[in-house]
Order: sequence, then C-alpha cells, then structure tokens
Amino acid sequence: MSEAAQTLDGWYCLHDFRKMNWSAWKQLSSEDRATAINEFLGFLEKWGTVEQNKQGSHALYSIVGQKADMMIMLLRPTMEELNEIETAFNKTTFAEYTVPVYSYVSVVELSSYMPSNGTDPETDPYIQGRLKPELPEWQYVCFYPMNKRREGNDNWYMLSMDERRSLMRSHGMIGRTYAGKVKQIITGSVGFDDWEWGVTLFAHDVLQFKKLVYEMRFDEVSARYGEFGNFYVGTHLPKERIAKFLAV
Amino acid sequence: MSEAAQTLDGWYCLHDFRKMNWSAWKQLSSEDRATAINEFLGFLEKWGTVEQNKQGSHALYSIVGQKADMMIMLLRPTMEELNEIETAFNKTTFAEYTVPVYSYVSVVELSSYMPSNGTDPETDPYIQGRLKPELPEWQYVCFYPMNKRREGNDNWYMLSMDERRSLMRSHGMIGRTYAGKVKQIITGSVGFDDWEWGVTLFAHDVLQFKKLVYEMRFDEVSARYGEFGNFYVGTHLPKERIAKFLAV
Amino acid sequence: MSEAAQTLDGWYCLHDFRKMNWSAWKQLSSEDRATAINEFLGFLEKWGTVEQNKQGSHALYSIVGQKADMMIMLLRPTMEELNEIETAFNKTTFAEYTVPVYSYVSVVELSSYMPSNGTDPETDPYIQGRLKPELPEWQYVCFYPMNKRREGNDNWYMLSMDERRSLMRSHGMIGRTYAGKVKQIITGSVGFDDWEWGVTLFAHDVLQFKKLVYEMRFDEVSARYGEFGNFYVGTHLPKERIAKFLAV
Amino acid sequence: MSEAAQTLDGWYCLHDFRKMNWSAWKQLSSEDRATAINEFLGFLEKWGTVEQNKQGSHALYSIVGQKADMMIMLLRPTMEELNEIETAFNKTTFAEYTVPVYSYVSVVELSSYMPSNGTDPETDPYIQGRLKPELPEWQYVCFYPMNKRREGNDNWYMLSMDERRSLMRSHGMIGRTYAGKVKQIITGSVGFDDWEWGVTLFAHDVLQFKKLVYEMRFDEVSARYGEFGNFYVGTHLPKERIAKFLAV
Amino acid sequence: MSEAAQTLDGWYCLHDFRKMNWSAWKQLSSEDRATAINEFLGFLEKWGTVEQNKQGSHALYSIVGQKADMMIMLLRPTMEELNEIETAFNKTTFAEYTVPVYSYVSVVELSSYMPSNGTDPETDPYIQGRLKPELPEWQYVCFYPMNKRREGNDNWYMLSMDERRSLMRSHGMIGRTYAGKVKQIITGSVGFDDWEWGVTLFAHDVLQFKKLVYEMRFDEVSARYGEFGNFYVGTHLPKERIAKFLAV
Repeated sequence: MSEAAQTLDGWYCLHDFRKMNWSAWKQLSSEDRATAINEFLGFLEKWGTVEQNKQGSHALYSIVGQKADMMIMLLRPTMEELNEIETAFNKTTFAEYTVPVYSYVSVVELSSYMPSNGTDPETDPYIQGRLKPELPEWQYVCFYPMNKRREGNDNWYMLSMDERRSLMRSHGMIGRTYAGKVKQIITGSVGFDDWEWGVTLFAHDVLQFKKLVYEMRFDEVSARYGEFGNFYVGTHLPKERIAKFLAV
Repeated sequence: MSEAAQTLDGWYCLHDFRKMNWSAWKQLSSEDRATAINEFLGFLEKWGTVEQNKQGSHALYSIVGQKADMMIMLLRPTMEELNEIETAFNKTTFAEYTVPVYSYVSVVELSSYMPSNGTDPETDPYIQGRLKPELPEWQYVCFYPMNKRREGNDNWYMLSMDERRSLMRSHGMIGRTYAGKVKQIITGSVGFDDWEWGVTLFAHDVLQFKKLVYEMRFDEVSARYGEFGNFYVGTHLPKERIAKFLAV
Repeated sequence: MSEAAQTLDGWYCLHDFRKMNWSAWKQLSSEDRATAINEFLGFLEKWGTVEQNKQGSHALYSIVGQKADMMIMLLRPTMEELNEIETAFNKTTFAEYTVPVYSYVSVVELSSYMPSNGTDPETDPYIQGRLKPELPEWQYVCFYPMNKRREGNDNWYMLSMDERRSLMRSHGMIGRTYAGKVKQIITGSVGFDDWEWGVTLFAHDVLQFKKLVYEMRFDEVSARYGEFGNFYVGTHLPKERIAKFLAV
Repeated sequence: MSEAAQTLDGWYCLHDFRKMNWSAWKQLSSEDRATAINEFLGFLEKWGTVEQNKQGSHALYSIVGQKADMMIMLLRPTMEELNEIETAFNKTTFAEYTVPVYSYVSVVELSSYMPSNGTDPETDPYIQGRLKPELPEWQYVCFYPMNKRREGNDNWYMLSMDERRSLMRSHGMIGRTYAGKVKQIITGSVGFDDWEWGVTLFAHDVLQFKKLVYEMRFDEVSARYGEFGNFYVGTHLPKERIAKFLAV
Repeated sequence: MSEAAQTLDGWYCLHDFRKMNWSAWKQLSSEDRATAINEFLGFLEKWGTVEQNKQGSHALYSIVGQKADMMIMLLRPTMEELNEIETAFNKTTFAEYTVPVYSYVSVVELSSYMPSNGTDPETDPYIQGRLKPELPEWQYVCFYPMNKRREGNDNWYMLSMDERRSLMRSHGMIGRTYAGKVKQIITGSVGFDDWEWGVTLFAHDVLQFKKLVYEMRFDEVSARYGEFGNFYVGTHLPKERIAKFLAV
C-alpha cells in the first residue's frame, strides 16, 4: 500500500443514538419498567466486565436537544462483536421503548501523518493504548463525522503526501494545546459508513468543544478541506444515574 | 488560543420547536387537558422564578405555518440544566401531546470582532448583561441558524483577522440602525449543533425582521459568506394566553 | 435603509398545503363527514366576509399529483391573524382528516426596482391595490418559492443597484407580455421562511405557467441568478365544489 | 414568445408511483380483496375506453426494487381530467391499501430544436400523433426527471439558440440509433413540477435503457448540462396479470 | 454504439436492505415465528437450487449499525425474475416483520476499459464467469453506489477515451494488489437506479475494505471524479445461523 494511505487501526467502534419513546414507556407498569431497566443495566455490567478485561470499552451519554436522548459508544476488537451486541440489544424489552435515530460504524485509527518514534507499533504500549483506548468518563461528549473535501481547487486527495503532512502538523499543534482539556478519539470509516472519519471528543468543560472546533476551523486543513456532518453534544450518564434518568 | 477564534461565552441556550398533536389532544377529557396545561404552567412558573433570580431566562412563542406550533427558548448557566429541563419536560403528560420537530443547542456569544472598551469582560456589567440576557417579551420572534461559507474564493475562514474585522464592522453598522426596533441574540454552536451560529431576533413589528435580514443580505459578509438554514417566525405566547391557545 | 433593499410590503400571506387522509375520512359516518364539511364551509364563509370588507383575501385550489390535495392561500393585514386562523383551523374536526405537508409564510411585496410614478405609495390606489390584492378566482394556480443565487461569479447580492435594476427591467418585460393571461403575486419571505420569495401565479390556461416560467428561464435574471424550490400546480376549488370534492 | 422557448405541447401527463401495503392487504377478507381488485380493474376498463376513443392513454408497470410497487402513467387532454382521475382513484378501497411514494406532473412536449417540416403542427398528423401518443405496451419502462444545468461555466440557459440547437442535434442522433429499440416520450414540467422535464422510455430489452442513457452521458448535452433525478425501472403489468400480482 | 460507452453486461442484480421490526416480531407466538422463519428458509433453499443450476446467485448478510439489519443480494438472468422474487418475498409473513429501508437495481458489468484478450466475450469462459458470478460466502460485505463526477473542470464524461482508459488502468492496478483479499463485483445502474454504479466488495478481513477504498481515494479517478453514496458493511449470515439471528 502506498505511504499516503497507511493508517494504524485498532478497535472497531459503534456509535448508537436513540430517542426514548416516553409515551409508551410511561404506559408500562412500574414492574415492567424496572425489569426493562435491569435488563439494560445487565448489558452495562457485562460490558463493564469486558472493559476490565481490556477486551473493549463503552460509554453512555445523554444527548442535549431533540436529535437523541442517549448515545451508546462501543469499542470491540472485531466487527462481529459490535454486530452481535447491537442485535442482542435490539431484542431487549428496553430497546422496544427506544427509537434508533442515528448510528456510526468505524474503527479507531492513528493517521499516517504521525511521526514515527521508531518502535514497532504492533507492540509499542503507547500506540497500542491509543488504538485500544479505555473511554474516559469525562462529563461531556461531542461527536461529529467528517470528510476531507474534493472540490475544484480544494481537493485534499490531490495534494502530495508532503503537503498533507505539513498541513496536518499545524492542525495537530492546535489539538495539543487542548491536552488535558479535550480528549479526542479519531475513528476511520472509509468503506464502513457515509463519512470518512468520526470524531469523538471528551471534556470536563463543554465550552472546550466549541473553542477547539472553532479555533481549528481557521486552520487551513479545516478551512479549505474540512466537511462536517451533524454535531451531537451530551452529558455523561453513569450507570448509577440511569434509573433516575428513566424514572417517570 | 489565537485571536481569530476568541469569543466571550455566556449562558447555554436550547431552542425547542414542537407541533401539537391536536387529534390526540382533543381526545383527552377536559379534566386531563386541564391537568396537562397546569403541569406545563407549573414549568413556566418555575422558570419564571429562575429568571427572577437571574439564573436563566426563557421565552415562549407560537410559530406561524406548519413547521411548528410553538418554540420554547431556554437560557441557563450550564449545559446540564438544559439537558435536565428537556428530559423533565419530555416526561410530562403535556409533552405526550406534542411532536418535537426541531431543536438547537448553542451558547450566547459575543464575537471577537467587537472593539474592547478596556474593561475586564468577566466583570463589566454591560458585557455580562449581554452574555446572560433576560429575553425580551416583544411581540415577534425570528430564529435561523447560519454558517460562514468556505467555498472556492468565498472562504471566510481563509481571510485575515483584519479583513474579517473590517467586514464585520460594516455588518454591525446595519444592525445598529435597527436599535430599538430589533433585538438580536447571537448564540454560537460550533461543536454543539449543525450550524455555526443561531440568530434569534425579537421585534415589535414583524416587518423589521424582513427589512433587517434583507438589507444585510447585500452586505458582503452575508452576500459572499453567509449560509442560512431554515427560518422560523412566531408571535409571543404569554403565560396568560396558553390556556386559550390550547383550548379545543 | 439603503436603496438596494427597499420594498413596499402589504398583506401577510400563508400558503397551506394539505393531503386528505382518505382512509380515515371514509371511516367517519356520513353525518360526521357532513358536520366536518360544514365546519370547513363555515370558515370559508367567514373568510368571504373578511374579503368583502377588504380586510383580506383567500383562495382554495386542488393540487395535482401526490404532493398535496389542496392549497389554502390566505392574505391578512397582520401576522397574528394568519397565526390565529391557522391555529383555529388546526383545531377543527376537518383538519383531523388532513395531513399538513407544506406551508409558506410571506408578505405581499412590490420590489424597489419598480420605477416610481411620483405618487405616495402609502396612498396611491394602484399600489395599495397591488399590496392588498383580492385573489382572482382563475381556474389554475402555480406556486413556487425562489432565491437569488449567491455563488462564485453568479452572486446577485454583489451586483450594483444599477445592474440589478437593468436585469429586472428586461425580466419584467417578459412578464408584461403575459398580461391578461397570467396574474402574478410576489410575496417576500426573507426573515419569514426558507426561501427569499414566493411566487403565486394564476391563469385561465394552465399551459401559460409553463410558457412563462420557461421563457423567463432564458432571461439572465433566472438563468444565472434564479434558484427554484418545489413547484405546485392546481385547479380552482370553489366553495360550491367542496362537498363533491370530499364526497366518498 | 422568443424562439428559444417555443415548444409544442400535447396531452397532460401524470406519473403516479405507489407501494402496496401488503400487511394490510393480507388482512382483508378474500371477498373484500376481490371487490377492491374489481374496482381497480373497473378504472382500467374505463381508461381503456378513453384510449380507444383517442381521448387519452395510460400504462401500468410493476417497479423493480423498494422505491415503488407500481407506476400508473396517465395522459389526458386537460389538467382537470388528471386531477379528477387522481382524486377518484384516491377514494377507492384499493387505494387505501397503497402508499403514494412519488408522482410527476407534466405535459407531452416536442422541443423547439426539432427542424420544422414546413407543415402546420396543429394539423400535421405525425406531430399530432407524437403530442397525443398512445403509450406502447412494451415489456419495460424507465422514468426519470431531469434539468438542464445552470452552474458557473455550464449554464445551458446562457447559450445561444444556435449553440443549443447544434448540441441537441447530435444528442438526437444518438437517440435515433435506438429507433425500434427504445421509444421515448419527453414531457415538459417547467412550472408544473420540481424538474424541467420527465423522460419516459419504453423497451423490449431492458438493457437498452442502460445503453442509451450511458451513451448519451458522454454527449456534451448530458455530460455538461444534464442533471438527473431518481430513476425508476419496471416491467409491464397488463390488466390480465393484475389479479395474480395482487394475489396473497 | 460509440466505443466510449461499450460495456459487457451479465446477470441483473437486486440489493435489498431491511430492518427487523423486533417489537412486532416478539409479539408473534413462537409457532408463528417458526412458520415465518421456515417460509424464509424455503426461499433460500429455492434460491440455492437456482444457484446450483447456475441460473443465478444470492447472498445474505447482517448489516452493522442502524441503517439495516440484513441485506439480500440477488443475481438473476432477467429483470423479471428479480421483480417476481421481490414481489413474492414481500407477500410472505416474514416480510411483514421487516421494514424495507433501501434497495438497488443494477446489472453485473465489465467495463470497456478492460483490455481485450482477443476472444469472443460471449463465449469466453473467464468473461462469462465474471458476468454471471457465483457470489462468495466470505465473512464480510461492503456495498456502496457511486457516480463519475461532472462538475466544472472535473467532468469525467468530457474526457477522451484515452484519458479515461489510462486513469482506469492505474485505478485497476490498486484493485489488483488486493487480489485474494477483496473480491469486487461492479454492477452498472445507469438507467436503472439513482447512481451510475453499485460496488459490492467481499473480504475475509473487514479492514481490507477500508484499506482498499482509502487507498483508491488518492487515485485521480476517485480523488477528482468519484462521488460516493451511502456505505453499508455487514457480516455473513449463513442459512444455518438465521434461526439464531431471529431468535427472541
């Protein structure tokens, strides 16, 4: 494969956005609701065990606005596991009271523009940790898909490797000034879903999403070559708060 | 952060547009409708107390045309509060008889193009008042989201800070000629929602929306760099008129 | 306000497109259908009185194809009246058997490119008649929304007033050759709805819509600067034919 | 009217695409289904009589893929007749078990680029036959709407009549090489529906649609100026096969 | 037909994507579910016989994410067969518990850019095998539709045959480096469906889809001339696993 297209790929990733069907949920008896919640918590517990065994990771956030009520983000070593979890989840009673509104299929990716540190990425612990990340439990999440533009004179894929590397370097510099404030997970979705990448950001202060994305928009990589899909922003929904979130 | 991307940010903002499900609403008994209306009025009362305590603001408008029947606009100091209010509202009986049709998540913003008056914006009362505004109860509202264009030779984000500031200055001059006629609240949504900004206008005379937006369209900032989403226009729905609005 | 953006504005305008839910309509008893039809006719009668009092106008057309079954076009002196009529209509039994599919909010407008005849437009009877028109009961209607383009070298809003006036003059000349064949009502919707203008055409011969719009498309104003939304075409539905139209 | 925009117009045309609601259809008793089918066959018989009287034509095709289950194409001398047939059909029991998915309103058109043969088109039997065509019962149908592009340097409507005529001539030459293989009916929809033309092709061999459309795409008229909507392809559904098609 | 547009065409192809209506499916009695599953398995068995007789081929995959739960891909010698299978399938009890979400109609195609090996393609076994392929039972599938771009200076259809052939040659070279890893079936849909081609990829390792499509994106054919629709990725669903997949 040509150097231009080389990436390091880690765990497969599913973002699953759902709305609650509150009307139907309220019509359930409180026993049936409790059963459904426990079924959901059972899934989260099982996913927790997987996470402890370093065989995957997951995150649950409550989305702000009408686009969705919750986002489940799942990382697993294989696409099959994502497919099986999704199918199993769709068969639950709880899922009957949700409406799927959006999903995204991708794989954790480190780009070829990253300077090598001379180690073997297959064994380097730092790189492996980034490819198979434990998702942070930070208070806020932001998700959006994106493309690199191919339009007239603004065609990313017609640039040379050197031009792209140099543009990405300055792009990365902005990202680095947010270290500790924003944690960023890039997942590649070429061949898997409708955009080329998914970007998932985590922060303790939700305003940092706006600052980071806005500052980057002036960077040539985004200004000339970035195309962005829909943005989802949410607050952390820890296991302990789910019963309250679903209480009616 | 580079000067280009600096903004002052205030209260978080949720615009929530809904249609009434009139058929279902009419099938309720008049007692159940009264209970649902009271539940809704209870929310508005609570929000009123928050507003009196300067901890937020809200507005309720009836939207003209089929896009929506009402718009609730909410300002709060944190994203969590918006998320909690939204979830609590969705669990009400009243919400069961509404259909969510659009929402917008943003934060009140003063742009970096505004000349500084030399004070500390964190304490300056004028600036703080604009960042944490009490929404006016003017007769008409207009809402639309917008982007700055990044297309070929019309790429806002590739202009220098000086060019942008100069363009924004003349833009602002038009706005100022509408002082007293149109009150404008700009909310930033980069990283939060699908467009870069939300614009909410209030007026005593609905025609002023058309005059303002049309005049600005000839200004280079809008003519070359403005991209606009859907427009919503509505009339004020004070608490006292809700029972009548919902009477069937 | 700069000369470029000056318009004369008259009555506010709501276009309301609906489909019939024929299945549900047929399930009503014939008495209930008769009651619903009478309720609808009552609205039309009231609107007729308003029209006789020169306080507004309305038109009812049956739309061809699956986009809609009927279009109600309403003109009123204030936005509130449109909002109130719409809400009242939505609460009727008849409305329960319709599905709203599209609407458009605008205001009757005479453009600033029109040469002045030296009179005061606020009192000139000809101008006032065009701003507060009685809608004709011609056999056919055509409605479409439109924008002036702002793209690369084809940016209407970057042209000088003189260029725009000259382009509009030749555009208007084509329109004038259809005098007596096509009656045209331009409504402005900048700040009110998603496009900049709505165009409503009336004709005795439906083919004149095609001839007019097609001929204009070769005119530079349309060829380079026109952007068009969806087109709706329909046949007149006089009050006397409604019962037959709704008979099942 | 300027020469550029002159067309000859014939019968009005409605394409009506529907899906079957198979679940609901299966829940009907077989007697009710038989009644509904007979009602539908009654319409087709009536349309057959109209066709024999040279007062219109129609065609019925089963569409391949999920876009639709059937397409009814109707030609009539007036727009009213299309509107009336559509409304009458929507009131049938059979229509209750269908879901309208797309429709197209247009009029049979011969373009102004066609060289004149010196006769009076109003009486010339060949031209009149093309304007009021009897739809063939060929095995396959293909329908798609299209526009002529108006973008930057590729603006059809800014070309001179001579340029357009010369481009259309070579376009027509390709079409002529498919004589006997593909029958093409062009219907104009400027002012009537969302695209400028509808193209309906008939063939004995479905592959000829692909060959014709693909070959034309390399022709400058399509390559630079053609914009295409959704394509529908189907197989002939003669009256005799309807009962089988609807048998469950 | 001009050389530019010559293709070799084989079996007709239907991609059919569906979601399960799990709520309704769970409400069925287990006997009724078993009956529905057997009905579905009966179809697959019949299709298996057709495949053994070299009269067609099919594949069944479970799609990852919310876009669909399953994709059925069908190849047959005639369009009628696809239409009949689809209609028969839609009438089954099983289909009542699925929701059609997307389909694609096309025909297996070998492009004119392929160098000839001097044999008669109508009888050459290699070419015939590619035109009437037996779909592999590889673990993963990827489907997406695509166009060649016609925009400004990036207009594929205005290039000469030589330019296109040379661009396609280098494109094909990339494909060949994936031999054994990715099996690719190109189906043409000009005149049949909304895009010009459908691309169906099969792999043992799902990551190869991403590597192949991403590497090709830097190739001029894709970088300048490729336009891509939605991507679907899935895992193989062999007949033996269907009962488990549908167990609730």
